[in-house]
Amino acid sequence: MTNINRIHHIGVVVRSIAQAYGFYRDRLGMEVVTEAVMEDQGVRAALLDMGNGFLELLEPIDPEFGIARYLEKKGEGLHHVCMEVDDITAALSDLKSQGAELIDEEPREGLTGTIAFLHPTALHGVLVELVEKGSGY
Amino acid sequence: MTNINRIHHIGVVVRSIAQAYGFYRDRLGMEVVTEAVMEDQGVRAALLDMGNGFLELLEPIDPEFGIARYLEKKGEGLHHVCMEVDDITAALSDLKSQGAELIDEEPREGLTGTIAFLHPTALHGVLVELVEKGSGY
Repeated sequence: MTNINRIHHIGVVVRSIAQAYGFYRDRLGMEVVTEAVMEDQGVRAALLDMGNGFLELLEPIDPEFGIARYLEKKGEGLHHVCMEVDDITAALSDLKSQGAELIDEEPREGLTGTIAFLHPTALHGVLVELVEKGSGY
Repeated sequence: MTNINRIHHIGVVVRSIAQAYGFYRDRLGMEVVTEAVMEDQGVRAALLDMGNGFLELLEPIDPEFGIARYLEKKGEGLHHVCMEVDDITAALSDLKSQGAELIDEEPREGLTGTIAFLHPTALHGVLVELVEKGSGY
């Protein structure tokens, strides 16, 4: 059994982080914790503080990446949920042994720490990211 | 300015709560806090503990409601994010005065407390629910 510690963040795809700040930062009072361009993921990203977790805004910057196609196909909106676990390597191994399909077979470094994505098929359509506790934000 | 206290829950539409338990409860170890049939919303709902917030599973039970059409059109997956505020009446008034479109003009009682939905247009495609602190779960 893999135990989830907490909701770490919610990922939202937007056309423009600058425009999204107009609501999430300026009207809902969320402070921007960090911003980064991740060229290997084809996105500009921003992490905003929601008190007990974060909002991650993702702006596609390269049409060759899946997230750009996601935006074109589905429009702006909820993209994934990130859940914190104590040991991400153990969690991936456990989930795989239980038949869950993994997008990332091995943990990798992401904006928020050591992360891995699970395939939505196992999770009733929800794209779930895991992050290891204490590995980053 | 409306200040968000925290992520309260994440809402996920599923075809069957019983089936979804097979992953979220039995493999990810989330405890079921409450279950309810809300006939006025056309759903069966379950709230699962995620440590710092909840996962709300929503199973449409009446094809006449919007959430059933949502499931047929978009499939299972992320549906909304619920954010906690201190005073929901003040938050709705403030957000409306700033041009945000509201689905619920007045707060109403939901599974998790006194709630209201904002229209996704203002929030870059994200369906946001507000819940008043201390009004329920």
